[in-house]
Amino acid sequence: MSELVEKAEKAVKAEKAEKAEKAEKLDAADELAVNRSEFVLEEDGDTVYLDGNSLGALPAAVPGRIEDVVRREWGELRIRSWTESGWWTAPERIGDRIAPLVGAAAGQIVVGDSTSVNVFKALVAAVRMARLTDPGRDEIVVDATTFPTDGYIAESAARMTGCTLRPVPPSEVAGTLGARTAAVLLNHVDYRTGRLHDLPSLTAAVHAVGAYVVWDLCHSAGALPVGLDAHRVDLAVGCTYKYLNGGPGAPAFLYVREDLQHLFDSPLPGWNSHAEPFGMRPDYEPAPGAPRGRVGTPDILSMLALEAALEVWDGVTVEAVRTKSLALTDFFLECVEAYVPEGRVACVTPRAHRERGSQIALRCPDAGDVMERLIERGVVGDFRRPDVLRFGFTPLYVGFADVERAARVLADVLAETSADASAEPGT
Amino acid sequence: MSELVEKAEKAVKAEKAEKAEKAEKLDAADELAVNRSEFVLEEDGDTVYLDGNSLGALPAAVPGRIEDVVRREWGELRIRSWTESGWWTAPERIGDRIAPLVGAAAGQIVVGDSTSVNVFKALVAAVRMARLTDPGRDEIVVDATTFPTDGYIAESAARMTGCTLRPVPPSEVAGTLGARTAAVLLNHVDYRTGRLHDLPSLTAAVHAVGAYVVWDLCHSAGALPVGLDAHRVDLAVGCTYKYLNGGPGAPAFLYVREDLQHLFDSPLPGWNSHAEPFGMRPDYEPAPGAPRGRVGTPDILSMLALEAALEVWDGVTVEAVRTKSLALTDFFLECVEAYVPEGRVACVTPRAHRERGSQIALRCPDAGDVMERLIERGVVGDFRRPDVLRFGFTPLYVGFADVERAARVLADVLAETSADASAEPGT
Repeated sequence: MSELVEKAEKAVKAEKAEKAEKAEKLDAADELAVNRSEFVLEEDGDTVYLDGNSLGALPAAVPGRIEDVVRREWGELRIRSWTESGWWTAPERIGDRIAPLVGAAAGQIVVGDSTSVNVFKALVAAVRMARLTDPGRDEIVVDATTFPTDGYIAESAARMTGCTLRPVPPSEVAGTLGARTAAVLLNHVDYRTGRLHDLPSLTAAVHAVGAYVVWDLCHSAGALPVGLDAHRVDLAVGCTYKYLNGGPGAPAFLYVREDLQHLFDSPLPGWNSHAEPFGMRPDYEPAPGAPRGRVGTPDILSMLALEAALEVWDGVTVEAVRTKSLALTDFFLECVEAYVPEGRVACVTPRAHRERGSQIALRCPDAGDVMERLIERGVVGDFRRPDVLRFGFTPLYVGFADVERAARVLADVLAETSADASAEPGT
Repeated sequence: MSELVEKAEKAVKAEKAEKAEKAEKLDAADELAVNRSEFVLEEDGDTVYLDGNSLGALPAAVPGRIEDVVRREWGELRIRSWTESGWWTAPERIGDRIAPLVGAAAGQIVVGDSTSVNVFKALVAAVRMARLTDPGRDEIVVDATTFPTDGYIAESAARMTGCTLRPVPPSEVAGTLGARTAAVLLNHVDYRTGRLHDLPSLTAAVHAVGAYVVWDLCHSAGALPVGLDAHRVDLAVGCTYKYLNGGPGAPAFLYVREDLQHLFDSPLPGWNSHAEPFGMRPDYEPAPGAPRGRVGTPDILSMLALEAALEVWDGVTVEAVRTKSLALTDFFLECVEAYVPEGRVACVTPRAHRERGSQIALRCPDAGDVMERLIERGVVGDFRRPDVLRFGFTPLYVGFADVERAARVLADVLAETSADASAEPGT
């Protein structure tokens, strides 16, 4: 072995030792470190789950609760559970549990249906609200980088309300708005790049032209403060199986600001949203308050798993989660920069904290292959076509040693696969 | 005690003994009696669950399966389960398991969302199909006795497609149809009266005017043969938590006849219905086949509970279930007539087998009070305002001795409460 190679290897080793030591210190000082025990996770030291932005880990309280729901509430009480076990009111009750995590007072959120269905409800209702004062409004604006389902559903909402859909890059949204704008659908955090959009100023811009905004919080609810009430957001939707750990396909949520609820005119006025659902009346009369956003019978098993999952938030603030999230993503970038040769990957997530969600997206041409190898070695992120490696950081169960390990394994994998690959920043 | 009273009491006792003996014989000859062991039910001899038309009893296979889904598939495999545990394809796979129960070949049913949401998808799609050949069609017909949610959703579908909604009594539907009819939404079995509508002839009548029919199978799927393919039904929806025992709020199903699938133009084109869902493409291209009816991420816990629940159908035909169902409801009426004084209740369910679903609805002015007392004594049916006692008969776990006991307890309760109550038949 040449002296030079030996020297370089020593330097790398020293750097890794230094980062590992730093990770240990950060973990020791982490006030959320104790929360990890509320999740079911491997303690083998090898597995690092960085895909909580796709499917959150299993909270330890869920299995026991679901067993009780199935065996006792369904199996023994059966139909009586709709009242005696609180099934009927679960959508509002669980909505109220989510409310403080997104900066909403109680009585404004219901849980139920998928995110896609809720986007449809919210967007159609927003257009109808805008037309109450100005029937001529005929445009829906959507950010062009949206998660696809929002765009597809927005197209349908536009078609069914006689609007035109205008997809525009997020940076151009404010300049696009005008007297014809009825509603605007925006993603709080870009699912691919992890970019955090400026909710307060964009909301204000939409209001300035007399339109209504619908925020999609899928990648921010449970990850960072949202401040729905504080920023006078009109409507919002979000999923509960990412940072809220509600389980696969757990029901989504819908927020309608209190003073707008009486104007909420749902395109899906199912019997659960009726003022008197058991009146079985042929004429529809919408319920007051948040239940107006309900549709059909709620999926109780998925919903009550979510309720149990939300117990991990007892005594935890989303502000503390945000502080740790930024520290985790900062540290990940620091480790990646230290371990991975320059140019091998390009970070597409903004460096500025105010523009960063709770994930880091790295671009490299062989991302699909790289992610497969990472997963084989226990570092679980995900791959988004064509060339993005996505790593989600969930502060309630990811620690700094995990982050260091993930960066180290990533560097190893990239070294193995680097023969014919080099990143092209900016593509 | 007068001789007359003594004589009358003896006669009643003899009648009860005779019915109990008959019940025993019927149970002994019942080929579906063994299926009861596949459900979790009280074996105390006192409890009779006749509310399976509202929430089916717990199939014994469900708790273990759900524990595995939660602990292993979610808790251990986490995100990998979307492919490795077959989560992604569950909506179609479970649809194929339901298909033979409603007379459909594979590849035409998907499971997901609530019944209300599926009514919306089906009805809007039906209107769009009708307009492909005749853009002038602008009427949606719905049976006026429908379960309320269908009517509310039909009103919304009409509003959003520029149609007029015409609610008409089921007996007048055929005479109402015409060149302006785009779509017709009908309930196979009336949720209140238990009346079975004539699906083959009504479907043919809708087709005769060039319109499309949507059948709501909530109260027939799993209770009687439907024959979707045989009768060339266009679209159908149904719930899975009644006679299919899928659990509280289990996802509903949507049937689109194979040759119409390429015309199915969904008002809720979520990313799960895309031809390439993980392509994350900004433009929408609908998937071929049944998955075109999907919307957002499916609620896996509720969905896989349903899948486990459907195992009770292994080796069971819906024809055998129907035969027993009619025998059960016949026997219930026979016992009620023998035990309950004439005029105290009025049966609103048709006597003719071809017009009867799998429930018996009895009208009496104090129905709410009567049902409360019945439930206190372990006979669980339900009450539908203003004056209907509803008893659902689920042949896979209800036997003839149960039926006799239910009628006996009903007679006892009615005798207690009869002071100030008498039924007015026909109101």
